[in-house]
Amino acid sequence: MSRILIAARTNPEGFATLFRAELPEHEVVTTLPDDGAPTPYVVVGLPPPGLLASRTGLEVIVSTNAGVEQLLASGEVPDGVPVVRMVDPGLRAGMVEWVAGRVLSWHRNLFAYLDQQAEGHWAQLPEVLAAERIVTVLGAGALGGPVATMLASLGFVVRTWSRTPRTVPGCTGFAGRDALDDAVASADVLVNLLPATAQTIDLIDHGLLSRMRSGGLLVNAGRGSAVVDADLLCALDDGSLGAAALDVFRQEPLPADHPFWRHPRIFITPHSAAITHPRTSVAVMAETIRRHERGEPLVNVVDRARGY
Amino acid sequence: MSRILIAARTNPEGFATLFRAELPEHEVVTTLPDDGAPTPYVVVGLPPPGLLASRTGLEVIVSTNAGVEQLLASGEVPDGVPVVRMVDPGLRAGMVEWVAGRVLSWHRNLFAYLDQQAEGHWAQLPEVLAAERIVTVLGAGALGGPVATMLASLGFVVRTWSRTPRTVPGCTGFAGRDALDDAVASADVLVNLLPATAQTIDLIDHGLLSRMRSGGLLVNAGRGSAVVDADLLCALDDGSLGAAALDVFRQEPLPADHPFWRHPRIFITPHSAAITHPRTSVAVMAETIRRHERGEPLVNVVDRARGY
Repeated sequence: MSRILIAARTNPEGFATLFRAELPEHEVVTTLPDDGAPTPYVVVGLPPPGLLASRTGLEVIVSTNAGVEQLLASGEVPDGVPVVRMVDPGLRAGMVEWVAGRVLSWHRNLFAYLDQQAEGHWAQLPEVLAAERIVTVLGAGALGGPVATMLASLGFVVRTWSRTPRTVPGCTGFAGRDALDDAVASADVLVNLLPATAQTIDLIDHGLLSRMRSGGLLVNAGRGSAVVDADLLCALDDGSLGAAALDVFRQEPLPADHPFWRHPRIFITPHSAAITHPRTSVAVMAETIRRHERGEPLVNVVDRARGY
Repeated sequence: MSRILIAARTNPEGFATLFRAELPEHEVVTTLPDDGAPTPYVVVGLPPPGLLASRTGLEVIVSTNAGVEQLLASGEVPDGVPVVRMVDPGLRAGMVEWVAGRVLSWHRNLFAYLDQQAEGHWAQLPEVLAAERIVTVLGAGALGGPVATMLASLGFVVRTWSRTPRTVPGCTGFAGRDALDDAVASADVLVNLLPATAQTIDLIDHGLLSRMRSGGLLVNAGRGSAVVDADLLCALDDGSLGAAALDVFRQEPLPADHPFWRHPRIFITPHSAAITHPRTSVAVMAETIRRHERGEPLVNVVDRARGY
């Protein structure tokens, strides 16, 4: 009858109902009874202050998010307690859909045709084949890998770039900081799916964007901290970049006075690219708890030094 | 030194250059010398009046388009001369990209998020998995088949409907007029890729759209004649349909006073979904000519009674 505390901000009761179905022998709560009993499992994205530090008997923190930089930076994670990040087929599928949708929309001039429609203007724009476009995906792991695979299956020439060498079938792999410029050289589309770490902050600056073929597309569904906002605006203004599809920002919600909101070639979604769907994610999180109780090694445990 | 007349409306010199590289032993012209010599091959979309009827020695008409209903209706095609329709990897790839882009944009709320951005409004909209959406593709041939396959690989539940039974891996096939209502029942997305024939005119009417799950998406990249325009507007108004992405119309260019232009939930592209790319299509057309000269059976010859 081990206790599981669901501290997700969105729809905690929905998660709890699914957890009770998956783990009927456990006590699943969304607020903590004042009984001092141990709470071995906490399911959480960003914990409210004091939530984790005050727990007794905490054994595993199960993150509802793929990115855990805010959780780690909260100062709430006790030493020695493993944090498991979200790697879930629903989240992965959502990311693949969102990136493919944005890349295809730009590639096939959807945004330009919306402008033409507003003017009642019928004119075919130049169209090229996906095989004539280079897409570089930063990140080749749980999200970057499937995204790169789908873009390759749509016909794009796909490169991946990652911290350590990784192979994604059908794509050309680049690894390490020294290879980044080559990975981005002449790319039509740059897709960022990197986690927020000390190494990825400000990685996408004017210098890197200038390596792309001019007039291309930046897609950011990783973390806002990877992009230097002022450099992105500068690259759009000087033509080294044609458009940007952004799902993540340095501050979220994006502040009302931020220039991204009104830029005609920046397309904003509110951190909705990859939602943690309860239906698929609870099965994954319940399996984490079962593995722990069977004494098996956990998978997707965060390396705190690495940051993901 | 057989003559090939390139009568394509768009970029005939570009096509001619590629034809000369593919078939260096042939005479490739874009306007016809006044020498009365036979012209066995004409490469054409919609022929100017008199172009075909006045030719001597015409052996094969090579269409630059997948849809040949206008060519057949022109009255210019002499009896007994085979017409080969365009089945080309570039055209197929373009259609897959365009349909996937439109379906993903709607599925992931791109259009709604553009509206929110215009208001500076940050709010996540409900998102569902592709696996929770049914897409019905009308047509399961050279275009419908690859489109259905890609949508299935993106995770959608895909049905195809065709005149005669066809199998597309990963999709549920429906065939024949009597099965159409079942094929469309409860679909979230209806994609039309059917050719224009006597059987497909007005096929998509209010009754058929009402079979879909309410609030869904109609995608038309087949032919405009398949859709009853007034019924489409009615279905959008009464909520049985949520949006429409249209690339083809009963009259093209779409007339300036047509209500589709200004409808907030109709997204228009100017018959640009699947372009015949010279680079990929000329190889296919040249092979048609080589097959003919080797005495081999032609492929993708139009059945004039069937209309495609």
